[in-house]
Amino acid sequence: MTVFRTFAGAVLAALFATAAVAPAWADEGMWTFDNFPAAKVQSDYGVKIDKPWLDRVQAAAVRIPGCSASLVSKAGLVLTNNHCVVDCTKALSKAGQDYVKDGFLTDARSDEGKCPGMTAEVLISITDVTGQIKAAGEGKVGAAYVQAKEAAQAVAEKTICNDVPGRRCQTISFYRGGQYKVYMYRRYTDVRLVFAPEFDIAFFGGDPDNFNFPRFDLDSAFLRLYDGDKPAATPQFLKWNPNAPAEGSMTFVAGNPGSTDRLLTVSQLETLRDLGIPIGQLQRSELRGRLIQFGEQGPEQKRIANEPLFGLENSFKVYFGRQMVLNDKAFMDAKRAAEAELRAKVAADPKLSAEIGDPWADIAAAQKAYADNFLVYRQLESEAGRGSRLFGWARTLVRAGQERAKPDAERMSDYAEVRLPLEAKRLLDPRPVDPQIETLQMEHWLLKTREYLTVDAPAVKTILGKDSPDALAARLVAGSKLADPAVRKALWDGGLAAVMASDDPMIQFVLKTDPDARAVRTIWESSVSGPTDRAAGKIAQARFAVYGESVYPDATFSLRLSYGKVAGWSYRGADVPAFTRIGGLWDRATGQEPFALPQRWIDAKDKLNPDTVFDFVSTNDIIGGNSGSPVINAKGEVIGAAFDGNIHSLGGAYGYDGRVNRTVVVSTAAITEALTKVYGRTALVQELLGK
Amino acid sequence: MTVFRTFAGAVLAALFATAAVAPAWADEGMWTFDNFPAAKVQSDYGVKIDKPWLDRVQAAAVRIPGCSASLVSKAGLVLTNNHCVVDCTKALSKAGQDYVKDGFLTDARSDEGKCPGMTAEVLISITDVTGQIKAAGEGKVGAAYVQAKEAAQAVAEKTICNDVPGRRCQTISFYRGGQYKVYMYRRYTDVRLVFAPEFDIAFFGGDPDNFNFPRFDLDSAFLRLYDGDKPAATPQFLKWNPNAPAEGSMTFVAGNPGSTDRLLTVSQLETLRDLGIPIGQLQRSELRGRLIQFGEQGPEQKRIANEPLFGLENSFKVYFGRQMVLNDKAFMDAKRAAEAELRAKVAADPKLSAEIGDPWADIAAAQKAYADNFLVYRQLESEAGRGSRLFGWARTLVRAGQERAKPDAERMSDYAEVRLPLEAKRLLDPRPVDPQIETLQMEHWLLKTREYLTVDAPAVKTILGKDSPDALAARLVAGSKLADPAVRKALWDGGLAAVMASDDPMIQFVLKTDPDARAVRTIWESSVSGPTDRAAGKIAQARFAVYGESVYPDATFSLRLSYGKVAGWSYRGADVPAFTRIGGLWDRATGQEPFALPQRWIDAKDKLNPDTVFDFVSTNDIIGGNSGSPVINAKGEVIGAAFDGNIHSLGGAYGYDGRVNRTVVVSTAAITEALTKVYGRTALVQELLGK
Repeated sequence: MTVFRTFAGAVLAALFATAAVAPAWADEGMWTFDNFPAAKVQSDYGVKIDKPWLDRVQAAAVRIPGCSASLVSKAGLVLTNNHCVVDCTKALSKAGQDYVKDGFLTDARSDEGKCPGMTAEVLISITDVTGQIKAAGEGKVGAAYVQAKEAAQAVAEKTICNDVPGRRCQTISFYRGGQYKVYMYRRYTDVRLVFAPEFDIAFFGGDPDNFNFPRFDLDSAFLRLYDGDKPAATPQFLKWNPNAPAEGSMTFVAGNPGSTDRLLTVSQLETLRDLGIPIGQLQRSELRGRLIQFGEQGPEQKRIANEPLFGLENSFKVYFGRQMVLNDKAFMDAKRAAEAELRAKVAADPKLSAEIGDPWADIAAAQKAYADNFLVYRQLESEAGRGSRLFGWARTLVRAGQERAKPDAERMSDYAEVRLPLEAKRLLDPRPVDPQIETLQMEHWLLKTREYLTVDAPAVKTILGKDSPDALAARLVAGSKLADPAVRKALWDGGLAAVMASDDPMIQFVLKTDPDARAVRTIWESSVSGPTDRAAGKIAQARFAVYGESVYPDATFSLRLSYGKVAGWSYRGADVPAFTRIGGLWDRATGQEPFALPQRWIDAKDKLNPDTVFDFVSTNDIIGGNSGSPVINAKGEVIGAAFDGNIHSLGGAYGYDGRVNRTVVVSTAAITEALTKVYGRTALVQELLGK
Repeated sequence: MTVFRTFAGAVLAALFATAAVAPAWADEGMWTFDNFPAAKVQSDYGVKIDKPWLDRVQAAAVRIPGCSASLVSKAGLVLTNNHCVVDCTKALSKAGQDYVKDGFLTDARSDEGKCPGMTAEVLISITDVTGQIKAAGEGKVGAAYVQAKEAAQAVAEKTICNDVPGRRCQTISFYRGGQYKVYMYRRYTDVRLVFAPEFDIAFFGGDPDNFNFPRFDLDSAFLRLYDGDKPAATPQFLKWNPNAPAEGSMTFVAGNPGSTDRLLTVSQLETLRDLGIPIGQLQRSELRGRLIQFGEQGPEQKRIANEPLFGLENSFKVYFGRQMVLNDKAFMDAKRAAEAELRAKVAADPKLSAEIGDPWADIAAAQKAYADNFLVYRQLESEAGRGSRLFGWARTLVRAGQERAKPDAERMSDYAEVRLPLEAKRLLDPRPVDPQIETLQMEHWLLKTREYLTVDAPAVKTILGKDSPDALAARLVAGSKLADPAVRKALWDGGLAAVMASDDPMIQFVLKTDPDARAVRTIWESSVSGPTDRAAGKIAQARFAVYGESVYPDATFSLRLSYGKVAGWSYRGADVPAFTRIGGLWDRATGQEPFALPQRWIDAKDKLNPDTVFDFVSTNDIIGGNSGSPVINAKGEVIGAAFDGNIHSLGGAYGYDGRVNRTVVVSTAAITEALTKVYGRTALVQELLGK
């Protein structure tokens, strides 16, 4: 849910940095709104951030699925990234009208198009419920502990939201169980598309420029919140500042960073570095090659390969960046030093020490089990059938059938009664299936499973029998009827009996092979993830005891505020400037994908001011999930939308390096210029300018 | 020249070992015949290896291009691996007769087919010339130093071989410059194919089983040396023992291990681990995916993709194994300890210390330059156009033209006058070019160069201009005429003027882009490879001074003898038995590639003795280049042909772990049984049995 789908090129060469994790980088942190380090900001920048300022920004910050956004007019107008609304743009397209390619423009509000399934949430309040959640778990262990805490969370959410329509309450764990807070949101379910530019300008430079800078992407779009079929009244919005900021001026980013692993122990980071990430990258690279080659067979193949390929290439670059920072000796040495410091402080406190024991040793022991079971767990369970919707549906049907036959308390957690509606929705929502891509992905999974687990592994023999990976994949995909939602619904409703009686080859395949997957899942939970989670909770407790709230929690796709400034960076003696300007676009365009400009931009060239700032970079500390976040100046005005990090930001999963970690922003100046001169959206510009 | 083309499955899962490099593993070492540790063997095994034994084995050991082999009859009959003769088998094939697929069988000697370009060399004598070579270099530096030593080598070779026809002398450096010896060979240029089995049984199990065990591969073939158009008289041959050895019985392997890096410093190993190997593997994996997908378009595409794919998959697995051993903390710790020990011994010897200085620090400094320049050096120079013959030829023509215009002493080393005949032969020999594979490989290189160096790199702008990688690759390959050897010859003969005047797009592309490649090559030689070579020579000197000849030199594709025994291994509590038997073949066969049996084997099933040992494993220390080596018992009889290592042997590039490192052998028992009952080659069996 927290994919940083920054469809936007790569200074991979720049990655071989000597990064570091000094304890107090300026500008580090994804802070919660109820614990923002205002004093430090005032001291570092001379800028006073008070409660009213924070309240205003919080009220204008919007969470949408997988992304962030902001209110920019009193009539519900929302700014986000184009890559955050591309599913909507595609859904609104019709035969002969490809809005993703051509852009989606509206003249009147009646033209605004409702986005299927889109929701938008604005945070109203934060309530600390740590005491009651922890109390519920006291004296309990294992499943009973989890159950009791989950029940207490449900009670807290129900109490706080009090069944008021349009509200949503969510209990969020911070510091890995150190704190629990209920976030109450105003929820909008009628969200409409107002404006989306052409994909080719939003993601100009494609994969080569993704996580790269200099950059020339208009990765922006506008939505509108509706309430009772009318534009929502949103008096608290961010004022639109159509002028680009000066270099060095202060910037804030309010949004929902998805997930960071900055609190992992050194032994966990070493396992990721030496095993988890490399194996994933090798398999990802091979699949990437297959999809590229498949796409070269013709325009139709290119079209159907593009969607999985974009996701895969983005993941590849994310993990490449993570691998490189973990391979950096200085970075790991700094992590070791930080861990040693915390352990020394714990050791110096006998009471604390007795309370938490030695969770670092527990986690190190779990790494051995990780290494012993990783390949089997990965191939049979966590990444089984990866990319094949048919396989995923078949597994859900088989497992749901088996689990629903059990008492609630004994089920796999995904199939607990309270979670069944979500599973059912995921299973039954219509989704397109391309048999060629399905077959390719299944075959890739089968090939790699045989390669990594070997021909001689009993589980591989069960999977393949006398089949080859290509023949088996072709047979399973060609014979399955699960692409039809009605077929899935019948099997869901029919339960285990219907599933067992099905002659669908994919269902039969999962029935045959799932016991091995479940077996390794059990081993994994008992020897790896279980002990790790318990120990991580202890470490969080220690950290909290030692450092209090002077440290920020790992990201949890909940609203955070980052501070920083507009600044380029220097790397190996080369200076990367903070800004790009529209004039640079013409030099970069080649006329060939992914450097081909839309016709509207070619036509508008002479009208556009070449000096207008297009994109810029800032020192803000963000990560995947922050896409679409408003970038705000000290006055609280919006000056851009964050849409990416630079290549150095990828190590941000494990630590922030203020010297080189940068947020990449499309400026309001560029958006205003483009709306005016490329797209002629006068009404929209007037609304933004409050006229 | 030292490719271990062990076309033969993968216990990758088994790789996550805790390997180690204890200073004295039993059975470690690739020993020269003039320094074999006979005393240690006698003490460890109670087996006496004397000079006559060594002489007999040396006289029967044969070197062929990239592989090893042995004489097994008095009439020039030679045993090697099928994968070592597949180029010959392919060359002898004709329309409607695919000997690679169907096997090559002969009834009479007149049926034996001459292998184009094949040579075979038998070592006659070893002469130590260390003194004269070192003396020649004394007092000289840089190019003059290299020149003087090379001249002295040529003199030594000429003196020792004395222009006797059929002899070849080669100066070989051991211990990285610690010793120089002239190896004098009897050279055979008329080598004919006698027997090759079907590819499907020779490489049964394909890539999944490559570097794996249990194994069922008949990876064997027979050649015959001819002299004056008659079978060569070879009185010194290895007696054929058609019975499989007992578990635990002693085994020797005589052959030509290609290359090991066991003497690299820790800082060099870290660079390979963190940068060199991972980048290569990611690009290799993507290309692998492309070739697999290309091959799925149809049988003809599959056929043309297979050759590059085999090589790529073999390389992938080799580097996967290397990566995993370098990622192993215990292995690296042992390397650190060994290095610290040597450094301490050097430090304790003031004279030695003063002589060699601190070469470890010099190499560590060169690692920084390695990291700074690696991606550019790799993409523009060392791996530029990788896999495209057209690009390779174009670069040779451009560089030869430019270099030949200079005085000999100022040329790039490949284009020195003495090396021009070899370059010309490489360039002008007819080789098939498949435009689709050429385009695919060129495009892959261009794509990855743009990705890893970024769009903004000046060299990338020079390469691509306004082109996309796919359009540029297609244009260069479609327009080039270099596939025609006559075109290449005209440009070679015409020299620089002809090259400059050529309108061949590939030639023009290289003329435009080569200055950037040369520039990074110069940086690399002056800051990475140059300083590293000099320092490595110093370390070799130190090692030699401290340990003398009690250590064996790194492999150099020259004749070595390894000792060990028939033994399975245990890993993570699972025992892998030492033998497979013919009966197991039927269980493993699925009827689908790569587990499909040739029809002859299906037909012969009932005749074959299921208990016959098929393949077995031994503790011998071998590496790529050893393919085809005779496996010999204590009596000096041949009992098999080495064709692979197990997955743990891949770490053998950096160190030998006797607990798990194994050589994989096809037994003479299986070969005899198959020749008799599958192929009906009675005469050949009689010759082998000396009847």
